[in-house]
Amino acid sequence: MDTVSRTAERRDALRATAAQRGLDAVLVTNLLNVRYLTGFTGSNGALLVRTDLPDLFGTDGRYTTQAGIEVPDVELVVDRGTVPALARAAVRGNAARMGFESHDLIVDGLAGLEKVLADAAGGGAAPELVSVRRAVEALRAIKDDDEIEALRQACAVADQALAELAAEGALRPGRTELQVGRELDARMLLLGAEAPSFETIVAAGANSAIPHHRPDATELRDGDFLKLDFGATVDGYHSDMTRTVCLGHAADWQREIYELVAAAQAAGRAALAVGTDVVAVDAAARDLIAAAGHGEHFTHGLGHGVGLEIHEAPGIGPQGAGRLAAGMAVTVEPGVYLPGHGGVRIEDTLIVTDDAPELLTLTSKELLVL
Amino acid sequence: MDTVSRTAERRDALRATAAQRGLDAVLVTNLLNVRYLTGFTGSNGALLVRTDLPDLFGTDGRYTTQAGIEVPDVELVVDRGTVPALARAAVRGNAARMGFESHDLIVDGLAGLEKVLADAAGGGAAPELVSVRRAVEALRAIKDDDEIEALRQACAVADQALAELAAEGALRPGRTELQVGRELDARMLLLGAEAPSFETIVAAGANSAIPHHRPDATELRDGDFLKLDFGATVDGYHSDMTRTVCLGHAADWQREIYELVAAAQAAGRAALAVGTDVVAVDAAARDLIAAAGHGEHFTHGLGHGVGLEIHEAPGIGPQGAGRLAAGMAVTVEPGVYLPGHGGVRIEDTLIVTDDAPELLTLTSKELLVL
Repeated sequence: MDTVSRTAERRDALRATAAQRGLDAVLVTNLLNVRYLTGFTGSNGALLVRTDLPDLFGTDGRYTTQAGIEVPDVELVVDRGTVPALARAAVRGNAARMGFESHDLIVDGLAGLEKVLADAAGGGAAPELVSVRRAVEALRAIKDDDEIEALRQACAVADQALAELAAEGALRPGRTELQVGRELDARMLLLGAEAPSFETIVAAGANSAIPHHRPDATELRDGDFLKLDFGATVDGYHSDMTRTVCLGHAADWQREIYELVAAAQAAGRAALAVGTDVVAVDAAARDLIAAAGHGEHFTHGLGHGVGLEIHEAPGIGPQGAGRLAAGMAVTVEPGVYLPGHGGVRIEDTLIVTDDAPELLTLTSKELLVL
Repeated sequence: MDTVSRTAERRDALRATAAQRGLDAVLVTNLLNVRYLTGFTGSNGALLVRTDLPDLFGTDGRYTTQAGIEVPDVELVVDRGTVPALARAAVRGNAARMGFESHDLIVDGLAGLEKVLADAAGGGAAPELVSVRRAVEALRAIKDDDEIEALRQACAVADQALAELAAEGALRPGRTELQVGRELDARMLLLGAEAPSFETIVAAGANSAIPHHRPDATELRDGDFLKLDFGATVDGYHSDMTRTVCLGHAADWQREIYELVAAAQAAGRAALAVGTDVVAVDAAARDLIAAAGHGEHFTHGLGHGVGLEIHEAPGIGPQGAGRLAAGMAVTVEPGVYLPGHGGVRIEDTLIVTDDAPELLTLTSKELLVL
């Protein structure tokens, strides 16, 4: 299916949600949601999806040409005040109830929107504003084939970047976390990533016990754990992978927690099945770690959805809610962190399917001693 | 001055603003503003600045250690619900009027905040919420020495990256815009940037006439203009520079608009003086371009402030407002774009001082033929 048909399908899905909720229109302001629903990749755009009238896409004059190419199938409104222009169009279309994204619009933005609607309605009734918080994000949780292909490529870039750095000996004692991190980021760009998915984590030795350590001037040393958590963005889609290796040699305690985390991670992956409660997925991995006496050393959720954002629905953790569905893209990333000593996290990005999950991050999870 | 004293000074400045406006407290939710006022670089934090009680810094458990290092001088509140925890503390401190950032807080966030305040007040009066939109951004417009040093480094990284690429012959016919852009980004990372400042613009040939062209598979060709607009982020501060070069040789029309834009850019830089109205700065460059008959080919403002954000106060354009002050960091970036043919933009980042402005982007602005 071509991209235009994909985005039209997505807008139809939002239209169905709107109709169910008795809305004539939905004003989409979140830029990633606009991208999802239209294909537009610029930095300013908004979308008005309507139940009984044509949709309208708004942007400013910088993007007239780009909008024509990326969004050929939605009527274009070019205006410096994108949201006001769409709001006035909604009033002209006699919208009575209009959805808006209360999880995205800022307080000043709502005040401005209310004023524009009242002004445009003149003496008449302005459309009633109704929150549709996270309605588009709910659609985004299920990826279509195009999105899965972008995720596959994003994961492949990360796999390749790490393989090349390891092969060149870049992960060796004497180098610093920062050097390794910057080289990993640079390599991903050269392999075709638009950007790193998030601030790359490189954590050596005791730093590996800090779940979200920011790389610093710490030198890699013989006998260290080296934890690398990173990803690439391709066509707007993010990959997310963590690998932990040993430098020089692996001590018994390192092998022990590595094997524990690897087993928990395999159990988490095996639990990724359509219909499974996300709390049960988390428990599949967490119970193994707890049974080994390390429950308090696994201090975060098991995973999260990934797509146009690095963290999106569904959350997979003890406090999660909901069940897995085919087409969800999720991470599975248990960890055991021994403060002051070191820690291990192993993380993959996978697609939930009606059969076994599809593994997108293909780097080996065998304990690697470099 | 050390960083801790700097951030304490900035909080005192906000405290003075709060006192002027009759506020007991200001709740700062914008993460860059929190960073500016505390030094905190994590991904979740909020700050309560109070006129008669100690300030409070809130973050979650992931950042306890980091907060202790980066924000040693503000009392720490660790809570998964950072903003609610600070709001409850404000009620316990009997705040009657509390400022909040209506240009940052989302609609759902305000509703949640109002509920927390009402619950915490019990039967009593909850603090009245008062918008302090862009109060911290107004402080941020004037950079202190530490910030200027970070900007200097960010500009130096960009200068160096471009110099290395040019010296290696990376800007030559046959290569694509995307290749050049990714290499420029990668080089900045290897030179110590945390990230590119924004999506790097590489525009060859007719694409150079598109002010914000996104690099694509277009090949560089002999006789092309090649426009590069890019920057590096160092310690959170952004640089911004545009250079336009000719590939192989320069035609007369190319030399003509290049010299025009260079003259306009010099005029804009010369107009950067304390007390000058931003509209007059814009006009200093724009009038030259208009006098040469290219007024309609210069389709954007002359420049903008730069700092923790790539675009911040002050805006320098025909619709701008306000006057320059010492310590402002701004860009000067006129352009002439001939649709379908090619365009030139020349941009520097500079600091406004009581004397001549300090030029931070040092790459030559002579017409370079590569």
